[in-house]
Amino acid sequence: MSTLPADATFLALSGGVGGAKLALGLSDLLGDRLCVVVNTGDDFEHLGLLVSPDVDTALYTLAGIVNPTTGWGRREETWTFMQALAALGGPVWFRLGDGDLATHVDRTQRLRAGATPSEVCAHLAGRLGLAARVLPMTDQRVRTLVETDEGWLAFQDYFVRRQCRPAVRAIRFAGVEAAQPSPAILAALSSPSLAGIVICPSNPWLSVDPILAVPGLSAALRRSGVPVVAVSPIVAGKALKGPAAKIMAELGLECSSRQIARHYAGLIDAIVVDHTDGALGRDIGAGRGAGEAEKAVDRDVDGGVTVLVTNTVMASREDKVALARDCLALCGRLAETGPRGGGAA
Amino acid sequence: MSTLPADATFLALSGGVGGAKLALGLSDLLGDRLCVVVNTGDDFEHLGLLVSPDVDTALYTLAGIVNPTTGWGRREETWTFMQALAALGGPVWFRLGDGDLATHVDRTQRLRAGATPSEVCAHLAGRLGLAARVLPMTDQRVRTLVETDEGWLAFQDYFVRRQCRPAVRAIRFAGVEAAQPSPAILAALSSPSLAGIVICPSNPWLSVDPILAVPGLSAALRRSGVPVVAVSPIVAGKALKGPAAKIMAELGLECSSRQIARHYAGLIDAIVVDHTDGALGRDIGAGRGAGEAEKAVDRDVDGGVTVLVTNTVMASREDKVALARDCLALCGRLAETGPRGGGAA
Repeated sequence: MSTLPADATFLALSGGVGGAKLALGLSDLLGDRLCVVVNTGDDFEHLGLLVSPDVDTALYTLAGIVNPTTGWGRREETWTFMQALAALGGPVWFRLGDGDLATHVDRTQRLRAGATPSEVCAHLAGRLGLAARVLPMTDQRVRTLVETDEGWLAFQDYFVRRQCRPAVRAIRFAGVEAAQPSPAILAALSSPSLAGIVICPSNPWLSVDPILAVPGLSAALRRSGVPVVAVSPIVAGKALKGPAAKIMAELGLECSSRQIARHYAGLIDAIVVDHTDGALGRDIGAGRGAGEAEKAVDRDVDGGVTVLVTNTVMASREDKVALARDCLALCGRLAETGPRGGGAA
Repeated sequence: MSTLPADATFLALSGGVGGAKLALGLSDLLGDRLCVVVNTGDDFEHLGLLVSPDVDTALYTLAGIVNPTTGWGRREETWTFMQALAALGGPVWFRLGDGDLATHVDRTQRLRAGATPSEVCAHLAGRLGLAARVLPMTDQRVRTLVETDEGWLAFQDYFVRRQCRPAVRAIRFAGVEAAQPSPAILAALSSPSLAGIVICPSNPWLSVDPILAVPGLSAALRRSGVPVVAVSPIVAGKALKGPAAKIMAELGLECSSRQIARHYAGLIDAIVVDHTDGALGRDIGAGRGAGEAEKAVDRDVDGGVTVLVTNTVMASREDKVALARDCLALCGRLAETGPRGGGAA
């Protein structure tokens, strides 16, 4: 990181819980030099409220008020609303905590009054005291739909109501053709201070792809000219959380960080994988402990993508910051050798 | 009550807290033979939710889940939502408890989906296990507006936000011209089993007048031919709760049960007043203790309206039931002598 100027800014792409953990580590290091672009394909209307689950997970995590057990929702939450709603016969499959409701009520009111999702998010981030900026991927409406062996399901119907049990055949992002990145995202990507882009270890298919599908966003990422580093969500051949491994199997893909690198081929300069990951990490990182300062970097694996082997499991705040530091340092090293130019093609 | 058949039904008109207390006493005696017609002039949209305060007070009171300290809202309530909303800079002048929110969210959803207020209320009453029926005064939108020395105020702005501090000059019920009583109210009023109508001790100007202003409702009350009994909200020359006394003074009216009887002149056959009330009760009930079984009844006070002097302060459940029993017995006695026919004109 010695080559990074003190005012270097970074952009992170994040879905929900897993991505927000790394975003928190990055935020601890970067403060207001971090922009987190968040998936809004999971957004939906529920109980007449406009709910934006991944944005809220990012906001709560960066504000230090996230529920540490679940990774979503608020800490010190109460559930009186859900109990009363159940007594009234209302739907309780999507759990909204009492404090969390304030976010949805506030957002819904502001959106109905004509504010954009970006404006609402900036308001919430300001009230929650965030240093980093949280940017919804677009101000237009995009809805992730999952084609399963039970037919097409709205994202939350698949993810929460059916708990990812149906087998996935395809995923699409309804409305994305008409979407565009918010002006704040494009400004962040064209800033001369931008020094790197980190794709957080969120589910590539469900959480990162909606962001990358926003017309013009992938092109703007590439055009930025800065290193793009993805952190693989695969650890020891499995997804730490969520249905990534299950979906990869259902889509006929090998569950490995190599497959994650292939998924992001053409976009990323480097992939960060866990020591325990079979396809890339175990080969390269064999014999290296998670505590070692020295990292294995291999520029010849899979199409010229640099591989950094490190600890990607973020149990503690220190883990999050350490992984964030690895990502930033990797961006620095890639910038030294010139992004995209140094690897074997 | 000996003359009342076992299947005799009654209709009560009620506003908020004070009225709901008597409605609870009536409900204990009558169960499903009671219909409570509730003011909806206080309804308003807040935080994007459609809130119906008097209807909810009636529902919660009859369901036994009302907050016994405030008389509105729910018992065993939590306030996490309001705390979180305050942190987001949202409006907190109108307090919505976490469990209470479930009612507003459920109502708002159902109304937006096309249900009528009566249908929503019937659903809520059913889920809350009510025996008595709660009927919103109309399914059309009526909004109570208060003209004050600070100009016209929406009801909740006057009542809650400004805590009734502005001086009242006039009151109007916007939209009432286009309103009509719900079919369920008209059916209850034309039922052959109807044996009496009780106007609960709610604020006559703010809470009962909106009901009586619904075109056709007063006429239907009179056409029913059954005794109409009002319980005065004035005790010892003051209102037990709320701004009734203050409003009467501001409107240039004497604060007395005599004035309440005058307000309802032409509609009621009898008024029930407290022992302690100056203008009617003290004269008539002097020397009679609240515990006496014998009630003073005077048919010659103020334009032929029968006066029953009793204890109208409903501190305990027993008080509520006792006052309800007084009202029903009075209806029975009035029916024996023939409503409206027995008093001196």
